[in-house]
Amino acid sequence: MKSLKSKILKEGIIKGNNVLKVDNFLNHQLDIEFLNDIGKEIKERFKDYKIDKILTIEASGIAIAAIASQYFGNIPVVFAKKVKSLNLDDSIYSSKVFSYTKNIEYDVMVSKRYINEKENILIIDDFLANGQAVLALIDIIEKAKANVVGISIVIEKSFQNGAKNIINKGYKLESLVKIKSLDGKVEFIE
Amino acid sequence: MKSLKSKILKEGIIKGNNVLKVDNFLNHQLDIEFLNDIGKEIKERFKDYKIDKILTIEASGIAIAAIASQYFGNIPVVFAKKVKSLNLDDSIYSSKVFSYTKNIEYDVMVSKRYINEKENILIIDDFLANGQAVLALIDIIEKAKANVVGISIVIEKSFQNGAKNIINKGYKLESLVKIKSLDGKVEFIE
Repeated sequence: MKSLKSKILKEGIIKGNNVLKVDNFLNHQLDIEFLNDIGKEIKERFKDYKIDKILTIEASGIAIAAIASQYFGNIPVVFAKKVKSLNLDDSIYSSKVFSYTKNIEYDVMVSKRYINEKENILIIDDFLANGQAVLALIDIIEKAKANVVGISIVIEKSFQNGAKNIINKGYKLESLVKIKSLDGKVEFIE
Repeated sequence: MKSLKSKILKEGIIKGNNVLKVDNFLNHQLDIEFLNDIGKEIKERFKDYKIDKILTIEASGIAIAAIASQYFGNIPVVFAKKVKSLNLDDSIYSSKVFSYTKNIEYDVMVSKRYINEKENILIIDDFLANGQAVLALIDIIEKAKANVVGISIVIEKSFQNGAKNIINKGYKLESLVKIKSLDGKVEFIE
């Protein structure tokens, strides 16, 4: 997605050689017109698929998923919640995530009411790095006996393991841009 | 907002005599078509005001604010972040919040890059109860010497103190529905 590459080059800030901050339009301040372009592009990538629902994760995935849903006929969006420690509860699906960024383990949860057997679900998130959050969402969808249609990511950090792990497991992954390295400057995979 | 009252009566779940769960369309699963109706209504309530930016707070405010922005010409949305303990940092505005629901204190923060002096800012959030989160957002806007145009809330629990506190301080508050009591059933203020 060419306009996204330009936006990242113009507004993204590299921290260390690993972290790309896009707080200016995606993670803290939201550029709503640009999120609409992102939503259109996600629809384009999945136009041949039947999708009943979008699953994302709080907090940065929510705006992207909500705006994108408008290009899929306003299908429901469910956002998974992150919780430090989960009380055992029959009414939820949950999966454990280890965050390498924060060096903590947390639980991701979705109420059983909001994912139903055989539903066709598209996962949307802002970043893909180690893929832990996406793998937890896949786990939750499969526990619910629903169908993972695919995963759409705004920014894939291809030098980390997430994309490889997801593709190796046989899932359709559509990242709008893929970053080869962040060593001083942003290099994309063309 | 009549359609919101019907939606709450149909899909809301009362817990105890204090908590209204609207996970079915607002707080966990998102009804995007209905969020568009909410966005239109917020615009209608503030159509005579100049608004440069929307400020909300993670996580439940994000989708409402992002969709609503589309009715204000796609103005930027900033979502404040909740953090347990904040490192002192010159680059952020912060304010303390006590959550009566969770019985914990936390910090709300916004990067100084995303609120500028003299900007006209509309605060949007899902619920108003004790008003602690909204008062923190007002505090942050005023620290930045920006202008609080008003506050728009989807569901006001009028039997708690938040609305009174905000109105007494002289701010324009527009709640799309006002709940008088949750004692066994939802009673609205007409």
